[in-house]
Amino acid sequence: MALQSFIEVKPDSHFPIQNLPYGVFMPEPGSPARPGVAIGDYVLDLSEIAKAGLFNGPILTGSDCFLKPNLNKLLAMGRPAWKEARATLQKLLSSTEAALRDNASLRQKSLVSMGKVEMVLPIAIGDYTDFFSSMHHAKNCGTIFRGPQNPIPANWFHLPIAYHGRASSIVISGTDIVRPRGQGAPSGNSPPTFGPSQKLDFELEMAAIVGPGNELGKTVDVNEAADHIFGVLLMNDWSARDIQAWEYVPLGPFLGKSFGTTISPWIVTLDALEPFACDAPKQDPHPFPYLAEKISKNYDISLEVQIKPAGQQDSCVVTRSNFKNLYWTLTQQVAHHTINGCNLRPGDLLGTGTISGPEPDSLGCLLELTWNGQKPLSLNGASRKFLEDGDEVTFTGCCKGNGYNVGFGMCSGKIVPSPSL
Amino acid sequence: MALQSFIEVKPDSHFPIQNLPYGVFMPEPGSPARPGVAIGDYVLDLSEIAKAGLFNGPILTGSDCFLKPNLNKLLAMGRPAWKEARATLQKLLSSTEAALRDNASLRQKSLVSMGKVEMVLPIAIGDYTDFFSSMHHAKNCGTIFRGPQNPIPANWFHLPIAYHGRASSIVISGTDIVRPRGQGAPSGNSPPTFGPSQKLDFELEMAAIVGPGNELGKTVDVNEAADHIFGVLLMNDWSARDIQAWEYVPLGPFLGKSFGTTISPWIVTLDALEPFACDAPKQDPHPFPYLAEKISKNYDISLEVQIKPAGQQDSCVVTRSNFKNLYWTLTQQVAHHTINGCNLRPGDLLGTGTISGPEPDSLGCLLELTWNGQKPLSLNGASRKFLEDGDEVTFTGCCKGNGYNVGFGMCSGKIVPSPSL
Repeated sequence: MALQSFIEVKPDSHFPIQNLPYGVFMPEPGSPARPGVAIGDYVLDLSEIAKAGLFNGPILTGSDCFLKPNLNKLLAMGRPAWKEARATLQKLLSSTEAALRDNASLRQKSLVSMGKVEMVLPIAIGDYTDFFSSMHHAKNCGTIFRGPQNPIPANWFHLPIAYHGRASSIVISGTDIVRPRGQGAPSGNSPPTFGPSQKLDFELEMAAIVGPGNELGKTVDVNEAADHIFGVLLMNDWSARDIQAWEYVPLGPFLGKSFGTTISPWIVTLDALEPFACDAPKQDPHPFPYLAEKISKNYDISLEVQIKPAGQQDSCVVTRSNFKNLYWTLTQQVAHHTINGCNLRPGDLLGTGTISGPEPDSLGCLLELTWNGQKPLSLNGASRKFLEDGDEVTFTGCCKGNGYNVGFGMCSGKIVPSPSL
Repeated sequence: MALQSFIEVKPDSHFPIQNLPYGVFMPEPGSPARPGVAIGDYVLDLSEIAKAGLFNGPILTGSDCFLKPNLNKLLAMGRPAWKEARATLQKLLSSTEAALRDNASLRQKSLVSMGKVEMVLPIAIGDYTDFFSSMHHAKNCGTIFRGPQNPIPANWFHLPIAYHGRASSIVISGTDIVRPRGQGAPSGNSPPTFGPSQKLDFELEMAAIVGPGNELGKTVDVNEAADHIFGVLLMNDWSARDIQAWEYVPLGPFLGKSFGTTISPWIVTLDALEPFACDAPKQDPHPFPYLAEKISKNYDISLEVQIKPAGQQDSCVVTRSNFKNLYWTLTQQVAHHTINGCNLRPGDLLGTGTISGPEPDSLGCLLELTWNGQKPLSLNGASRKFLEDGDEVTFTGCCKGNGYNVGFGMCSGKIVPSPSL
């Protein structure tokens, strides 16, 4: 029988004792932020557990990593510390362990109803990198922008393409997204356009959180790269397709992306995901030795995108995809990122790129779903080419275990109008 | 007669009392870093001046901004604080003021020989953005990579193109640069190449340091953008042209740039640069209103690049350019960066892009100077298409005033070999 917690966890919960994802929260508005793990409908306050002396393993005893307003110090400590924390917390929360279960005072202090807390960014993000690792997304975008002849760039199968993203505008799930203004491409002999984006889009992504970094000038071996990844979360890389299409030659996306990127509050650890590991796609051509892994892993994570159109009560599912649709693995992304000596730091965010699958209902953005606005979607009778003001987009992600889920919760954001200039 | 300091400043010094650029230094190895200004051959330790109570204006009295290991707090305080600090320091260092001049104990504590200190990064850099604002550079790169037909992309004259750079690998002048490894483009039917970059290049840039930022979702008006810029420094955006050429389609530069970016230690304030302001180039087509400035300013800053080839004692000047060669101004860059609501934060770094002039000896990188390796340079008899291991590249920048300079010092780095894998 599966491990059980003394805390009631509903069968469809994303957060059983097998998961224990990490976040940072404020128990009430204005109180200091502190780390927690999700368990059922509760958040376990790790600062209280640390103050009670219950992180008593050899690495974490006396550490202040759970007294910080972000997870960066824990991230820097590496996998042995993470494994110790997980073992400690799984034991503490289990139905057979009395230390917390039978201590009413500590339960009162450390278990907070999830509905009452305010989640904040769990990490201080030094650099944010976004990859482009779904072949289906690369093929569809190439076809839309450059036509059906060789839609996938020649380099794509040789290296995990990526660009540097904007770290300052990464926000936590639930933050409104202001529709960006910008220039769009001229049509014919007209001048370029200017105004609120007319092609505002979501991008269904996940992102890896970097643990220990590497020194500038040194590389990370692809077979050791997993030790540099703490966990994974959901990410919406909001995109203004009209701004992006006009600005991106020759230096890539800039203002079309930098107005906001939403991440989910809970980081699911690689240890929690391990039961859901699956083979990564076979790669042809065979990658260079620095990208060739002894074991090449993906994870079977079901992903879903819902849109609640402005003024409506109900959401529509517009996409069902899966993390395993990625061609390049997280570990290959880390190895590639550092092959030139670039240093990663704890808390860096590595986006996967839009996770589109092969089926028409598994495409990870409106650009693909509506084929750049040519085929509007019908949402409870409302028609959408791109997002309108008031639309709310929610991602969920979940691994289905034997009698339990390991889930990611939600990553959500609502579009609000551009302010007047 | 020009303002003079009681500290001797040689006529060719970059650091007279008219300049007073800000940096962060360690008086001896391992001692805590603290802010300073350069004056002649000395660094004035601002933590000692603050502790002595000599920042006694209405804004800075009691502030701990000079007791920090970086300038970010001072940057966030904005122009009124910067003006007060400058007035205080110019008075304190002037030949007619006794407070420091006649206080041997305070002089002993606060004035450190520049030759003895170790300069460190002056700011904690949240995000680094690199623009592409020299028309000559854009034209030359376009011609080299895409041919002489329409070498400048259609968007270039409508907006200051930029990309997000890597913040983690920004290093202070004097730090060795490890030659990056990476993939290069296939030729014919061969597979792509892999190994240490064969086309390692410098890029002559300057960068603006952001002061007060803007809230996410809000824009900065172009006519108020100067209040968001603290000052300017020299920057070498090292580039591996072979890696860049293969990876950059369609998302822009990534590993071809992220292995290292060198900045000079001293930030010259806009106030110190004001006497060297000059008209920016006339822009045709006329820019959109959000980019149209009442006063459009450049600065007359002479720039020089020297290379000391491996194994030689002497450096060769390879380029003489000028900041005023930029088409898009710093203030237009800030306005464009925020027009979509992207938030800037104190300490963000905005690179200008390579500053090439119109003449053959004013080109800002080897890609242009050697026309992608087709026309090697002769350096004291050594021939160079691109940089070799052991080559040292040094930038200097200086404004020539009436009887004094306002200079930037040096931005320098030496290439060291790729380590074995």
